[in-house]
Amino acid sequence: MSAAVTENGYLGGKLRLRQPARGYRAGVDPVLLAASVPAMPGQRVLELGCGIGTALFCLGTRVAGLELTGLEVQAEYAALAEGNAVSNGISARIIVGDLARMPDALKQAQFDHVIANPPYFDRAASTAARDPGRELAMGEDTPLAAWVDAAARRLAPKGYASFIHRSERLPDLLGALQGRLGSVKVLPLQSRQGRDAGLILLRARKGGRAAFRLHAPVLMHEGTRHEQDGESYTPLLRAVLREGAELAFPE
Amino acid sequence: MSAAVTENGYLGGKLRLRQPARGYRAGVDPVLLAASVPAMPGQRVLELGCGIGTALFCLGTRVAGLELTGLEVQAEYAALAEGNAVSNGISARIIVGDLARMPDALKQAQFDHVIANPPYFDRAASTAARDPGRELAMGEDTPLAAWVDAAARRLAPKGYASFIHRSERLPDLLGALQGRLGSVKVLPLQSRQGRDAGLILLRARKGGRAAFRLHAPVLMHEGTRHEQDGESYTPLLRAVLREGAELAFPE
Repeated sequence: MSAAVTENGYLGGKLRLRQPARGYRAGVDPVLLAASVPAMPGQRVLELGCGIGTALFCLGTRVAGLELTGLEVQAEYAALAEGNAVSNGISARIIVGDLARMPDALKQAQFDHVIANPPYFDRAASTAARDPGRELAMGEDTPLAAWVDAAARRLAPKGYASFIHRSERLPDLLGALQGRLGSVKVLPLQSRQGRDAGLILLRARKGGRAAFRLHAPVLMHEGTRHEQDGESYTPLLRAVLREGAELAFPE
Repeated sequence: MSAAVTENGYLGGKLRLRQPARGYRAGVDPVLLAASVPAMPGQRVLELGCGIGTALFCLGTRVAGLELTGLEVQAEYAALAEGNAVSNGISARIIVGDLARMPDALKQAQFDHVIANPPYFDRAASTAARDPGRELAMGEDTPLAAWVDAAARRLAPKGYASFIHRSERLPDLLGALQGRLGSVKVLPLQSRQGRDAGLILLRARKGGRAAFRLHAPVLMHEGTRHEQDGESYTPLLRAVLREGAELAFPE
């Protein structure tokens, strides 16, 4: 990774994060993931593949007193995450390691929440990104089932796993969850009225036995087409992205 | 089954169907299923578990010149289906048999469309209905995977399977489809704005390789709560239920 790093504001500037100028750069997805996690003060949270810590630190900004742990396979991203924690006054433990070969430091640990924004592209059906760091963050060297397995193993009884993913991977994600985590709920994120859900937020519970629920989609943008690059977010999305509001699943 | 039979109008009275006064009675679900099937004149359609023929005959009323075949395990329902075809001037072949032990008459046949409204209740998680006919129609003696298997086997290459089911069974349905049918699309049916999808329409294609798509939900009722028993259907649903309009999946 080159030394070129930029600093960007999140949650209306409450959070400032340094990230590589090239390679994988955090979009709104980890912010939405963090907004959806039903964490209570004092609980233990593990992010699998935390990158520079966007989701973890957005969550730590919204909910006080969490025990935050991030696992990241790329040392350079993990170093940025550690720096971001310090510069934002957030207490967090960042561990360099591969979720598919869980580091000893985490093997005995349990968490109330495990969260993840797994890579979006199935390598079998797409072409690799040029930047190797971006490739590792975006490609799917680690199968989706390994993310679910790691989450299921690290969760305490009754703990929640929260994922954000492209909706086209929903069948694979549900397949991986089968028999591992229960009480699955899907909250589709719809870019505009009438469009397919591009993304889904998914929550599942260790030991959960409730029926699967498909919630009404959350609308992200006003209007039926892309008008301009400015603020077309719906009021709820603006509150989530600019004020750090919660994106609650329906009861 | 007792001799008590009622006759009910569907599609604004274009279709009149006789069904048992007690036991399983067709609601709007088979009407919605039929409205969603992308059948073209001249094509071959098989309904698995056709009951008294509601979905099959709704489809035959909307699309002219289809070759309609219905498979029904309960002889009394099949007899009503045959009578309903005749009384409505629809040409259809009704076969008494179990989809899990496909009758010889169908073993060599292929279809452009296979449609089904499988039983809604997973017996492991619910209690049996009192009426045995209703129980067989509503319970899940035949596992969902057997419905998908029968559909996949009877479809011609590039043929479409169309299902309607409770959304809580989506994970099981997707699991059963895995590796059998592709290009899966889910159209959630939402009773009211903001509510969970209660039902889903699902379409899959034999040999299809397109990515999974989660469409925006179709809203069934106006308003945010149940106001009265009258007509609260949205204009689209009214057109589908009262005029026999198509319920098209998005392109």
